[in-house]
Amino acid sequence: MELIVVGAGPGDPELITLKAINALKRADAILYDNLANKVLLDYKKEGCELVYVGKTPYQKYNSQEEIHALIKEYADKCEVVVRLKGGDPFVFGRGMEEIMFAKSYGMKTSYIPGITSMLAIGLSDIPLTHRGISEGFWVITGTKKDGSLSRDIELALQSKTTLVIYMGMKNLPFIVEEAIKYGKPNTPAAVIQNASLPNMKMAKGTIVELEALSKEHGITHPAIIVIGDVVNLEGI
Amino acid sequence: MELIVVGAGPGDPELITLKAINALKRADAILYDNLANKVLLDYKKEGCELVYVGKTPYQKYNSQEEIHALIKEYADKCEVVVRLKGGDPFVFGRGMEEIMFAKSYGMKTSYIPGITSMLAIGLSDIPLTHRGISEGFWVITGTKKDGSLSRDIELALQSKTTLVIYMGMKNLPFIVEEAIKYGKPNTPAAVIQNASLPNMKMAKGTIVELEALSKEHGITHPAIIVIGDVVNLEGI
Repeated sequence: MELIVVGAGPGDPELITLKAINALKRADAILYDNLANKVLLDYKKEGCELVYVGKTPYQKYNSQEEIHALIKEYADKCEVVVRLKGGDPFVFGRGMEEIMFAKSYGMKTSYIPGITSMLAIGLSDIPLTHRGISEGFWVITGTKKDGSLSRDIELALQSKTTLVIYMGMKNLPFIVEEAIKYGKPNTPAAVIQNASLPNMKMAKGTIVELEALSKEHGITHPAIIVIGDVVNLEGI
Repeated sequence: MELIVVGAGPGDPELITLKAINALKRADAILYDNLANKVLLDYKKEGCELVYVGKTPYQKYNSQEEIHALIKEYADKCEVVVRLKGGDPFVFGRGMEEIMFAKSYGMKTSYIPGITSMLAIGLSDIPLTHRGISEGFWVITGTKKDGSLSRDIELALQSKTTLVIYMGMKNLPFIVEEAIKYGKPNTPAAVIQNASLPNMKMAKGTIVELEALSKEHGITHPAIIVIGDVVNLEGI
């Protein structure tokens, strides 16, 4: 019995790796959630079980413990279990938790990286690095409205690094406030939803304009926030 | 005439996206360098020109200007020019410089993201993030031994972020020295070369041990340095 934790990429079904496709073709069961493009499930072989582990109406998300229980359940009856996750499983994906659980249960495990969402913002001509403009990038999660989020924003703004925030939409007012407090209100910034998909939405401006622009463009959760001069290369 | 800047992934020829493969199949010319796996060139169609733009013995690297000149030259005689780059073209890859050049020359341009090398370190069970251990990661380049490198290391060590350094081997003594000065000498750290390939090499220990371990394992340039508790999850 084997667990393969597979990155599905950012949404465009062509932005998945050949290795991931080959794993999907071998799977006896595929555990998937909302973040992976459903079209990818068509790679399944005959008899492969498709197991939805995401949100359903009137129900909460499956807790991580429930997902672990499902991994165990399918590992008991299948040779190859694929856990298909949106983006990359190790970038805020809790993929290693599932691998550690599977190992503790005696399973063979492997990981197949995926194109994480921040790479897909490059499709809008926003590179993470650009010589002379940004020699690095700091990636944080915006889910926590506590001291560590504020501290990371403060530290990042002292550098020339590009700041990338995953899952930051709910805390956008707080993030903007912190960025203004520590940095420059006029630093270029963008919010991007569904990068790589036909329904992609993007708002571009400065930090201080980010909330109004997001509303104007109808951008909601989940989206990626990018702060730094790479957002506005044509203006340089 | 069209320029497609394509990420080849970290080395394993299966870690390229379907979209990248489709671009290679359409190309009339492929401009490639040492960082992309040569096996990927087999996707070329009949009559496609393969143009090496990397290092050859007794010669220097082609300068970026020479690569731009080659893009122009092949754009003039081809419909579709693919620029194949190792990893992801927008993570220290200067891909946007080539796109901006091509645009200034009136070419249609596009970008296809690739699995950047730091994602491939996950193949050694080192995730970039892990709940409760690291809620983010800071990616920097180690090519510059100046104030900004030192400053970024200092700032990163004040956070719980995972620190990832590309192209840091030549400045490893300096990086280690800075990390000890600002942080904890016993922070877990790893150096990984050729992640995803059969000749992968890895050294794992603490920051203070990194140079000796790298020598012991015969790890040279190019390699990725990772600093943070995610390196030692089994020890937690």
